[in-house]
Amino acid sequence: MKIEAVDLFYLAMPEVLDVADGSQDMVLVRVRAGGFTGWGECEASPLTTIASLVCPMSHSACHPVLDSVLGQTLDTVEDIAKIVNAVRANSLDLLQADHTLSGIEIAMWDLVGKTQDRPVYELLGFDRFHPKTPYASALFGDTPQETLTKARQVRADGYIAAKFGWGSFGRTYQADADQIHAAREGLGSEGVLLVDAGTVWGEDVEAAALRLPALEEANVLWLEEPFTSGALSSYRQLAHRCNALRLAGGEGAHNALLAEQLIDHGGVGFIQIDAGRVGGILEAKRVADHARHADVQFVNHTFTSHLALSASLQPFAGRTADWLCEYPVEAKPLAKLVTRNHIQVDNNGQVTAPASPGLGMELELEAVRDFLMDVEITVNGKTLYSTPDLTD
Amino acid sequence: MKIEAVDLFYLAMPEVLDVADGSQDMVLVRVRAGGFTGWGECEASPLTTIASLVCPMSHSACHPVLDSVLGQTLDTVEDIAKIVNAVRANSLDLLQADHTLSGIEIAMWDLVGKTQDRPVYELLGFDRFHPKTPYASALFGDTPQETLTKARQVRADGYIAAKFGWGSFGRTYQADADQIHAAREGLGSEGVLLVDAGTVWGEDVEAAALRLPALEEANVLWLEEPFTSGALSSYRQLAHRCNALRLAGGEGAHNALLAEQLIDHGGVGFIQIDAGRVGGILEAKRVADHARHADVQFVNHTFTSHLALSASLQPFAGRTADWLCEYPVEAKPLAKLVTRNHIQVDNNGQVTAPASPGLGMELELEAVRDFLMDVEITVNGKTLYSTPDLTD
Repeated sequence: MKIEAVDLFYLAMPEVLDVADGSQDMVLVRVRAGGFTGWGECEASPLTTIASLVCPMSHSACHPVLDSVLGQTLDTVEDIAKIVNAVRANSLDLLQADHTLSGIEIAMWDLVGKTQDRPVYELLGFDRFHPKTPYASALFGDTPQETLTKARQVRADGYIAAKFGWGSFGRTYQADADQIHAAREGLGSEGVLLVDAGTVWGEDVEAAALRLPALEEANVLWLEEPFTSGALSSYRQLAHRCNALRLAGGEGAHNALLAEQLIDHGGVGFIQIDAGRVGGILEAKRVADHARHADVQFVNHTFTSHLALSASLQPFAGRTADWLCEYPVEAKPLAKLVTRNHIQVDNNGQVTAPASPGLGMELELEAVRDFLMDVEITVNGKTLYSTPDLTD
Repeated sequence: MKIEAVDLFYLAMPEVLDVADGSQDMVLVRVRAGGFTGWGECEASPLTTIASLVCPMSHSACHPVLDSVLGQTLDTVEDIAKIVNAVRANSLDLLQADHTLSGIEIAMWDLVGKTQDRPVYELLGFDRFHPKTPYASALFGDTPQETLTKARQVRADGYIAAKFGWGSFGRTYQADADQIHAAREGLGSEGVLLVDAGTVWGEDVEAAALRLPALEEANVLWLEEPFTSGALSSYRQLAHRCNALRLAGGEGAHNALLAEQLIDHGGVGFIQIDAGRVGGILEAKRVADHARHADVQFVNHTFTSHLALSASLQPFAGRTADWLCEYPVEAKPLAKLVTRNHIQVDNNGQVTAPASPGLGMELELEAVRDFLMDVEITVNGKTLYSTPDLTD
């Protein structure tokens, strides 16, 4: 089969707020070949991603992403790898290309899975999906009291693990300690508590180290993104000062090498990968393999739809040692409505990716049609992009 | 002063060819504040860069770049740093933002230099510009004979250093050896010879190592980008197998941390930074400082205009130990015409950045008006970008 079409759709909530909620818009990707349709999602700025798909070529290492995908053969997993390599080479100098590629790669897996009538994790070589323990991913409340209430609710909803982050966290030591202890109190002593600093300390090891006593006291499993993604030296120094606490990071990685550096030189205990950013499922699987050899736990990063969730669960589907998974609980209606089916938390408090072909998610396009943004990009009078019809 | 306008211009040659020549198009940046105008350039995909400037916000860590620049105070160097930090934080999840920021940051330096009537390198703390030895940056010929002729011409033109790369280089061992020896023959035994592999071996250390004997025999000073930017482990392994040869890399770095990793964990002997990609002049200066402490030589990466060249020369202006500079000799008319003055090779075969205020480059807008691309981007009927008037 040849790839006949690669379409990006920009969907957004009617009002997008200046808050740390990444589910307010979406880049949905549709790939068509041989009568089959695959769907994917980029975790990326939609308009910028669209531009990188269709921009005029700048030179031989700065092609639009579309150039390396459209018309290519897509029958097997090897074909996916070949297309990924072509995008990386032909769009080497196009920074946004890694985010754009990610959603396209995911859609290609979905498509190949459908043609072979097998779930993606089987195509990756896993014989089955080992259920993961979802952690509810939430923002800290504005006050410790609000965080306490939130944590209690998460626990009441059946989650044994929860992550709190962002908001005002990271500004003053005492407020942070109060927030951490409130989250622990609400979650109960047996809950798995994770804290996300959202890169708030930049590269400042001492600022982060100030929070270590409170984090260790509250038996927090991991401290996520104390620093900017690439601040390997800061990560390593802080990791050496931790006792039971581990560092987590990697969501900013837009290729496997960046994630591997955090493992090899940053001393993280958990590597968090978003298939919708890192370059897709195969690239994420590479990180999972590298993590296993380094005795580091792989965890998905997901804050949008269950299509994105299914994609990010595939790379570590078969590994029992990688037992945790991020599970967004505060997503906006757009992210929920876009799929007909959802990856539910079962009675054991665990989640499993669908066993149906591809990513196993059925799109519910009618439900999100009102969220579709009408985009048009013209260069010298030629229309390079105009929002396509949103159909299956 | 408040920043009143940030405008991007997409300029391109009438025909853009699928060859390794990055001077075929350009993102020109104009920043206005308090009656002053600063100019900069991004080394980036123009349409994608424009989209990242004006795209609608996705969430609090995915703002369009413009949000963190327009209306901000710009009087001092500290104000530039503040704006850079704001872009990095507010556009953390917008991958293209680093390239976009780069050109804006450069334009801000040009503007502040003009308001203070001082060249940028003085604002950076250097008392004067120490002349650099330019290396002529050229592509390998299609045959060794063609490379020989090119190298002789470079020598006849007065350059004592030259870099050859790309084209068919990296495919077969014998052809590569022939090319390397032809370049050395043409340049003469005393010329400084550099070879650029353009990431052709991906992460394959053995493929690169096969070329080491020919490179060492031909007394090549550096082998540039044998691997993908982030392949630190491959870089390190190859570096350990070199004798006199050194590795060079870093042009792909879109922030200082990525470049520092190549120094700390990749074992490069030369770090090549493009101010138009790394986040601007201040970020490049940070790399230069880091390199100095690691006994690594800093070199600019430049393949476009002399505006971009001036910007990339500033971060290591005052360092005598960093004596080489990249100097594009095969640039397209667009890159030459865009400035009225040029950074010329003097009688000693050296170059010096202008001593006039800012970056010291006078724009020649009339000469490139025909290259201006007419871009329009609309979202839900609202025009987010329409090519502005190209005036000073």
